[in-house]
Amino acid sequence: MPIRGDPDSLSVGHHVDAVEDIRSILRQAAADRFDFVSIPLAAPQGQGVDYDFRPSVESCLTLEGEQWRTVVVGRVSESLDPDTASTFSEAEVLRSCLETELRWAAHLGLQYAILPPPHSALDKGATGSGCSYARAVGDLLAGGLFSLAALEDAAPVALQVPATSSGWKAWNRFRTLCDHHVRLCCALELTVDKTSEKELERWLAEPVRCVILSPSTFLLNRSGYPVLPKKAKALLEQLFRRQVQVIIAEPQSVEQNEGLLPRLSYIARLFQALPPLSQAERFAYSHMDTLQAPLQPLADNLESETYELFETDPVKYAKYQEAVFIFLTERKQEGRPMPFCVMVLGAGRGPLVEAALKAAERAEVEVDLYAVEKNPNAVQALRHRKRRDGWSSVQVVPGDMRSWDAPKKADVIISELLGSFGDNELSPECLDGAQRFLASDGVCIPISYTAALTPVTAPGLWANARQGAAGGGVADLETAYVVHMQHAFYPCSAVKDCFEFHHPNWTMESNDRCVDLDFEIEVDSLVHGFAGYFDCVLYGPEHISIHPKNFSVGMFSWFPMFFPLRHPQYVPRGSIIRSHWWRRHDAHKVWYEWALTEPAPTEVQNPGGRSWPIGLL
Amino acid sequence: MPIRGDPDSLSVGHHVDAVEDIRSILRQAAADRFDFVSIPLAAPQGQGVDYDFRPSVESCLTLEGEQWRTVVVGRVSESLDPDTASTFSEAEVLRSCLETELRWAAHLGLQYAILPPPHSALDKGATGSGCSYARAVGDLLAGGLFSLAALEDAAPVALQVPATSSGWKAWNRFRTLCDHHVRLCCALELTVDKTSEKELERWLAEPVRCVILSPSTFLLNRSGYPVLPKKAKALLEQLFRRQVQVIIAEPQSVEQNEGLLPRLSYIARLFQALPPLSQAERFAYSHMDTLQAPLQPLADNLESETYELFETDPVKYAKYQEAVFIFLTERKQEGRPMPFCVMVLGAGRGPLVEAALKAAERAEVEVDLYAVEKNPNAVQALRHRKRRDGWSSVQVVPGDMRSWDAPKKADVIISELLGSFGDNELSPECLDGAQRFLASDGVCIPISYTAALTPVTAPGLWANARQGAAGGGVADLETAYVVHMQHAFYPCSAVKDCFEFHHPNWTMESNDRCVDLDFEIEVDSLVHGFAGYFDCVLYGPEHISIHPKNFSVGMFSWFPMFFPLRHPQYVPRGSIIRSHWWRRHDAHKVWYEWALTEPAPTEVQNPGGRSWPIGLL
Repeated sequence: MPIRGDPDSLSVGHHVDAVEDIRSILRQAAADRFDFVSIPLAAPQGQGVDYDFRPSVESCLTLEGEQWRTVVVGRVSESLDPDTASTFSEAEVLRSCLETELRWAAHLGLQYAILPPPHSALDKGATGSGCSYARAVGDLLAGGLFSLAALEDAAPVALQVPATSSGWKAWNRFRTLCDHHVRLCCALELTVDKTSEKELERWLAEPVRCVILSPSTFLLNRSGYPVLPKKAKALLEQLFRRQVQVIIAEPQSVEQNEGLLPRLSYIARLFQALPPLSQAERFAYSHMDTLQAPLQPLADNLESETYELFETDPVKYAKYQEAVFIFLTERKQEGRPMPFCVMVLGAGRGPLVEAALKAAERAEVEVDLYAVEKNPNAVQALRHRKRRDGWSSVQVVPGDMRSWDAPKKADVIISELLGSFGDNELSPECLDGAQRFLASDGVCIPISYTAALTPVTAPGLWANARQGAAGGGVADLETAYVVHMQHAFYPCSAVKDCFEFHHPNWTMESNDRCVDLDFEIEVDSLVHGFAGYFDCVLYGPEHISIHPKNFSVGMFSWFPMFFPLRHPQYVPRGSIIRSHWWRRHDAHKVWYEWALTEPAPTEVQNPGGRSWPIGLL
Repeated sequence: MPIRGDPDSLSVGHHVDAVEDIRSILRQAAADRFDFVSIPLAAPQGQGVDYDFRPSVESCLTLEGEQWRTVVVGRVSESLDPDTASTFSEAEVLRSCLETELRWAAHLGLQYAILPPPHSALDKGATGSGCSYARAVGDLLAGGLFSLAALEDAAPVALQVPATSSGWKAWNRFRTLCDHHVRLCCALELTVDKTSEKELERWLAEPVRCVILSPSTFLLNRSGYPVLPKKAKALLEQLFRRQVQVIIAEPQSVEQNEGLLPRLSYIARLFQALPPLSQAERFAYSHMDTLQAPLQPLADNLESETYELFETDPVKYAKYQEAVFIFLTERKQEGRPMPFCVMVLGAGRGPLVEAALKAAERAEVEVDLYAVEKNPNAVQALRHRKRRDGWSSVQVVPGDMRSWDAPKKADVIISELLGSFGDNELSPECLDGAQRFLASDGVCIPISYTAALTPVTAPGLWANARQGAAGGGVADLETAYVVHMQHAFYPCSAVKDCFEFHHPNWTMESNDRCVDLDFEIEVDSLVHGFAGYFDCVLYGPEHISIHPKNFSVGMFSWFPMFFPLRHPQYVPRGSIIRSHWWRRHDAHKVWYEWALTEPAPTEVQNPGGRSWPIGLL
């Protein structure tokens, strides 16, 4: 009964309107193979000032705590939006009723409560002018009403909103007024009629806790079975991968199950028809929701487990092997004298050494191979493999490539020093420091790499970053993070190239950079920051890339980076985001700075590398 | 030689282009009655990559430190804007030259250095796309280049910008990129041609350090003397009150003084023709640049000096006396039995008692007067005055009006419990607690009051608040402040009424409030928060007000309040600011919350009164 789904399972529930006997309702739901039910929190009663709270069930004693927690979701009464009141005192009454019901849901220990849609989400096109509803809910969240809920059930309050454009605007307004509280999520009504695809895709980055399917959402196919219209189906399939629950909202009647069950089996078939997760997707899910400060391999020594994990990448080393093979074959065809001198810089536990040796064997060339590694613990593994695997042509060199006194010049320098944003693990500085032992006609693999960026909506990442590692101050929002989850953000525009580096860099061109990037925004968006990628040419046609345009399918060694903005920016469609990016250095460190000037100027983030320096030493 | 002007004096300097002999230049300037000169920091030299810094003077030994500090201002070379470079490496050269000159200015200890206008300020209408100039300057400011400058000379870097619309945009962009650094100010070129009055007025809230008058700004009048065109003159007169310096930029030639001196005497005449400061203005200046958390008179006892200061207000007590006189006269004319029972609640050291007694004497009525005061130290003064001034009809009552067991019912309750925002010192709660001893046909003076608000540009206030009293965190930007300086902000729209209260409140209507206010923005603005005012009806036609529409001229007891926004909002002209205001309470405190929903939603500020509670106890 996976009420909080994992990517391999689905949790489907249905609305119950009248709660006569909750135990028999649950028995029937289980028999029908529903995972949970959603019930009204209050019994039917007077509205507005006549409201007098009576719970829909006798008390918390009706069920065990475990049942409340796992198989029941609560719905706050409709018409409790304080912004619909005509007087202040009436609004106060509604606010107080709202509070009573939410406190009741918290008392029962329900996993979450669904709030009725804000008035402004329903006014087609119009923006509601009040915001007392959001203020009231924000107050309860900030006051810690749900702070006892387990962290994995981190969003105990779900605001119901239609998936339309005005629904998104109402949601964006509500959550911003609640200061992006991590315990507020949305319950998405899948009404998609005139909403464009771009507008629907915005929901993919939002914290959608459940999808509500009302009867009117379904069509009947020619055989008389309920199906979803194309756009709704497409959105639901994408949301399945984001671990949403599904709630079928069906008016109850005598023939209840006759309406519900065909819909349940349609949803189940839709889910089961999804392709199984790939190895890379599985890896991503296992690391989901994590924000990680990028590695600083110059400063830190990796652990064996980290090496082992990345060595299993099914794509990366095959690409390197092919690139080295092409290079060696060219040299051989040019009739150059053998053995060729191959240097692997940052050899780790040897995957690039192995790839190079295989390439040499396949090209039928002799090589002298130097495996340089600064981590003394990894050097033990290299020596072990030299003995075990008969690497007679390999010399293991412990030490830093920037200070190694090489015995001869290399025909090719092979390295894997890239971070998710390309140069962010200081590959340019390392290779510039090593190229003094590259022959004048020598080659570097990789030969070049380019960082790329796009603005993204990423409420979860941003809220996590804000609470984050550096203690919740400015520094947390001036650091970029490796994002272990492709789904955690939604790109608001095209991806554009940023910084580019080529090797060897014989003219010793500065590795500082400054780039201005404009992005067109197609739908109203809340921009939380930028996603960063890299695209890397190894040699000839061989490349490795996490850039969406030419992603190396199946490669899982890198996830995108997330550069947060200190303040999320609301950007209306048709606007331009003009962003500015700097890569700078001093004697001790390299750092990035970034700022916007359109639609409005922002402060420069990470000035002087104050929050996020990348150590050179 | 008041280089940092006070409101009664003016400091005028002139540009010097070539610095052959700085000592003789200063001698001549003093003889001509100039207060200072501005000199180029560097001697003429190659531009761009050919730049090779040579100072314009031999070294710092040329003058005494005191002279560098007080009579010399430096100008950074033109053409050092890195955003004008066509390549990144050229931009780096310009940035480095800029840094060299600013470090030289800091070394000499000059009061400030003038930076050349950013490229984007000069492109008529167009927005420059780069922002490396601002980044470079922000870097030096954040790096503490000028942190040794004295605090009273808090803005050692002045960016030259024209007073035009594109000049303001360039300035706004530059200072935002520099994260609103308090040490960055502007040097305003008074070129006003097609700029609207509203656009010009925006400068009144900006940190204008000096006004630069170029020859083309002047016209010749019919007598052949230089004068300023009307709009320029009007802006300059307003800026005089904001303590700007004036720099006359005159191309140097043999007839130098013939050009300079008539302009100097025109400026001097303009300044001397200003009306002298009123008592209220003088008081404001003496408290200028201060942000003060509002009084909490329920929690704090005022000191004698504070009482004494406010008792000297030439307007407030006269208005109270008139109001009481009208009331007593009406009662007398109705033939009601005397003596009338008058209660002064919060009597302090007695100014309202005195006003009431004078009103009674003038109206020729008998009164029984009760003077209730909770501050035991002030009670001593009341008793002293009863003896000294023969207040035989006065009974001094030590204690809290909310718990006083009054011996009879009052015909009138007189109080002065208002704060700058009307109810913010909890007048509603105090008077609701006291009205149980008001006769059923009794009257309260004041009878009603209304808080009012307008969005403002207030870069200095905002930056001070951010650094502020509560330790530089969120709390500092969720507290409102009393602003001791009318000039510190510039209203971006009309003033609108917010919360209203009436006394007596026989129905005990809640003192919680919720109001939504829309403001139209007439020119592109950076909105830092809201200014708050009150308007108060004492009795009949008598009112006291700090609302701009009907300000009680000469009254100085209250200054406006400043409600900051956590993040300044850039609002293009023609937009609406939709703001939301709540007054709320619990058992221990009253508080305000505020938020925007247009042009973009913001978080609710001060939720639950977390940063700024107003204690009820």
